Amino acid sequence: MKRTERACIITQLLSEHPNRDFSLGYFAEKLGCAKSSISEDLKLVRSAVDAAGLGYVETTSGSKGGVRFVPYITKEESVAGLEKMKAMLEDPSRNVGGDYIYTTDLLFDPEIGQSCAMQFAKHFAASEADIVVTIETRGIGVAMLTARLLNIPLVVIRREARVSEGSTISINYYSGSSDRIQKMSLSKRAIKPGSKAIIIDDFMRNGGTLKGIEDMLGEFDTKVVGFGAVIVVEGNKGKKIGNFFPIIMLTDTEDGYRVAVNPDII
Amino acid sequence: MKRTERACIITQLLSEHPNRDFSLGYFAEKLGCAKSSISEDLKLVRSAVDAAGLGYVETTSGSKGGVRFVPYITKEESVAGLEKMKAMLEDPSRNVGGDYIYTTDLLFDPEIGQSCAMQFAKHFAASEADIVVTIETRGIGVAMLTARLLNIPLVVIRREARVSEGSTISINYYSGSSDRIQKMSLSKRAIKPGSKAIIIDDFMRNGGTLKGIEDMLGEFDTKVVGFGAVIVVEGNKGKKIGNFFPIIMLTDTEDGYRVAVNPDII
Repeated sequence: MKRTERACIITQLLSEHPNRDFSLGYFAEKLGCAKSSISEDLKLVRSAVDAAGLGYVETTSGSKGGVRFVPYITKEESVAGLEKMKAMLEDPSRNVGGDYIYTTDLLFDPEIGQSCAMQFAKHFAASEADIVVTIETRGIGVAMLTARLLNIPLVVIRREARVSEGSTISINYYSGSSDRIQKMSLSKRAIKPGSKAIIIDDFMRNGGTLKGIEDMLGEFDTKVVGFGAVIVVEGNKGKKIGNFFPIIMLTDTEDGYRVAVNPDII
Repeated sequence: MKRTERACIITQLLSEHPNRDFSLGYFAEKLGCAKSSISEDLKLVRSAVDAAGLGYVETTSGSKGGVRFVPYITKEESVAGLEKMKAMLEDPSRNVGGDYIYTTDLLFDPEIGQSCAMQFAKHFAASEADIVVTIETRGIGVAMLTARLLNIPLVVIRREARVSEGSTISINYYSGSSDRIQKMSLSKRAIKPGSKAIIIDDFMRNGGTLKGIEDMLGEFDTKVVGFGAVIVVEGNKGKKIGNFFPIIMLTDTEDGYRVAVNPDII
């Protein structure tokens, strides 16, 4: 096998398994060559990945010593996907009455979902989170794609406990957007105490749900190290939370919402 | 930029955007070289991707002419992930009483979820589906990863209609596993009539929910072209459905379930 071919295979394996640790020995065995050749191949891979601007190859220390691929997205690469999402949200036919905008299709579109997940994975790369947490239903797609990029499990809080969840912990909380008391449940098996969590949600208006999720995670002795929301209505309480990262911001105006992409991104 | 570096970048872009069509012109502009060079680079990429066994590069016809990356997984590559999943399901501590097994963590684990999604994407590659459909909640992670690999939107059927979904269509159906009438709802905006759908679900016991989903899709003049389930209890009615593809099969025994991986896969 030629060097170019090996470099392409390594690139593919790394980018298909973001944040997974690969030892040099793994590649050497898979590609049938010496570790020293793999080291040389990796120099090529590293410089190519840097040039593409969609991630970088990090050297891992420890007894095995190896590499991992860390997803990243440049401002330049971010613009197209997020401007497309903004334009879709500005379409007046998405207004379904009251203050509600139809967003479900965007959230489950793989291209838009992946572009949001890339932003979250980049922003929370150094958070040292063990888990991604979301609450059903509309944020699950983006949260799953984020969990894949960070290579950590996703934990989904349910509205109602199900028998297949075993024993659960439940929380009642006040939801400002629906102006009523709501419930959320999570299996006692779902989180190892002492974990660190990033919360990913699709929409935040006044932070009531987020507060509920924080209380729930407190029951699991789990610390919130970041909060990402796809769409946020500006002026809400969520900003009091440290490491809060929205993608799209809505501002109330007399003619409906004004839509903007988080200026830190593009 | 050298050929090797260009080949690595093309490999990364293709494998990070499965089933997306790229024109040769796109690569030529991005990498600052002639289309004829890109054609040569693609020969290298194609042979490397073939050797890795995790997909292939397909030439697209039409005025633009280009390439796309189609994800694929060999039997050899499938074994490790699926045997790990089987072993986890066999752990007796997962029995949460009755006939129920705790599976939520597996379904939202990015490595296991991705390995299930790869199987579905491979099996349904030629289905010509326009959408992936699931019903909340536990199948959403795998369904989203599958939608990403096939590069088609995911449609999530809800249990209860929400105001932000606009007008919805609702169906009542008999669920054998819970022995009661259940409800499902879907926004009228969610599916374009005349679509072709793959249904992806996490668990199938007797096919009641699946029947409900088919009825729902009938309301949208949408044809079911395939059905994939992560876990299936054997002997159910689902097998009457054409193009039915399970990953894990459970068989009732006196000591609980026997767990097996679909023999067509490994």
